[in-house]
Amino acid sequence: MTVKQLPLAELVEACRELGIRNVGLWREPVQSYGLEATAKLVRDAGLTVTTLCRGGFFTAIDPAERAEALADNRRAIDEAATLGTDTLVLVSGGLPAGSKDLHGARERIADALAELGPYAESHGVRLAIEPLHPMYASDRCVVSTLAQALDLAERFPAHQVGVTVDTYHIWWDDTAPRQIARAGAGGRIHTFQLADWTTPLPEGVLTGRGQLGDGSIDMREWKGYVEAAGYTGPIEVELFNAGLWARDGREVLAETARRFAEHAA
Amino acid sequence: MTVKQLPLAELVEACRELGIRNVGLWREPVQSYGLEATAKLVRDAGLTVTTLCRGGFFTAIDPAERAEALADNRRAIDEAATLGTDTLVLVSGGLPAGSKDLHGARERIADALAELGPYAESHGVRLAIEPLHPMYASDRCVVSTLAQALDLAERFPAHQVGVTVDTYHIWWDDTAPRQIARAGAGGRIHTFQLADWTTPLPEGVLTGRGQLGDGSIDMREWKGYVEAAGYTGPIEVELFNAGLWARDGREVLAETARRFAEHAA
Repeated sequence: MTVKQLPLAELVEACRELGIRNVGLWREPVQSYGLEATAKLVRDAGLTVTTLCRGGFFTAIDPAERAEALADNRRAIDEAATLGTDTLVLVSGGLPAGSKDLHGARERIADALAELGPYAESHGVRLAIEPLHPMYASDRCVVSTLAQALDLAERFPAHQVGVTVDTYHIWWDDTAPRQIARAGAGGRIHTFQLADWTTPLPEGVLTGRGQLGDGSIDMREWKGYVEAAGYTGPIEVELFNAGLWARDGREVLAETARRFAEHAA
Repeated sequence: MTVKQLPLAELVEACRELGIRNVGLWREPVQSYGLEATAKLVRDAGLTVTTLCRGGFFTAIDPAERAEALADNRRAIDEAATLGTDTLVLVSGGLPAGSKDLHGARERIADALAELGPYAESHGVRLAIEPLHPMYASDRCVVSTLAQALDLAERFPAHQVGVTVDTYHIWWDDTAPRQIARAGAGGRIHTFQLADWTTPLPEGVLTGRGQLGDGSIDMREWKGYVEAAGYTGPIEVELFNAGLWARDGREVLAETARRFAEHAA
């Protein structure tokens, strides 16, 4: 998503040129290119798919909407398995229209996880609840902190449900380091993502994630927390940034690799 | 600030017409109208000033900047005392340019409170640390949760330092209700403010606070938490909203009073 302007085949080629061996994919470009075709593309290039983004959106009250969400998440699990990744990232969903009940919405997420966890396990896929920054609590994700994500995840086995640790969403939270330790002790850090925090935030606050080094977050500090918690998996850089998307994708990918080396490696 | 388009004299007149007996003031309009003149204006109208907004901005590293911030906060305390309010709301400040050290910034807030607490006490004024929504953590306020605010406040006597509970900033936080109980038990809820959460957020995320009833927050639920914690003080409605500011101020004030009755009274 950092370089969503690059068509998949170009992305894979650019990764090869830069020596990048792992890539996180989003469902929409995979579906556009074709699931089996994408799986072959990355396999032939020797690329490993780190995670698939994203399942989730579990908070609907309407039974038909809930059934459709569950069906869509089963498809996402199938896609993850076909792509050879063991991790599906979940954005849990916001408040239904007119609702003010955060607690109820969070409980409906738990209900969905109870249905999807065994299905994911049987496909060799782990679900990774991503707490999103509290500024998304109403319209995107009622899970706003690592503690809330773990409270949900820990109702299920770790090989079914864990969490996504993303610096952008949790950097302000002084309790996050000990929640990372909690997640690591339980074997629940299923992926680790980096993005920097920059201001002013754009309208709608979706496309303002900063390039590594441009903002307020000490990437090495957070990398240190997940490593101290036992995490040895890949590190993803996930930047939603209108400015980066407007530039040449290969140039942005190369810049991102350099910034990663400078600020996180 | 909800009706900042109203000059002070008009605001006081509109409050009288609507039967509003309490008003929270900001420093800038008070300074424009004149401190003593404002004190006389509200006193003659039988209005009580609930709080003065705002002191704070304690996170600078530069010694000259820090000294100026402390001097300005002493002036704010003087102003509060002259206006007859016992509460100065504090917005603590963001990260200094180039800094990524949230912990250090929070410690500098504590240093400032240690200097200002006794001065405030000697003037009959309490300092009320306001945790701001985490989306303001870098550029406005490194105190993002009630727990963080209380961790700071509790280093000092409750009659010197407490907290501001504002629904807009904390509504997403499932730990906030027990932090309100903690604050109440310690006698540290120094003011309670209402604003609703609406999306999409505007660019810069400063002027998007929703009119009561327009958003995702159950006002009565939060009023219940502060009342259960023993709070019996006034309730302020503080809306930063470009749409409301563009309208007739008296109409907005009347609407706000109606919404308060409908959603919070």
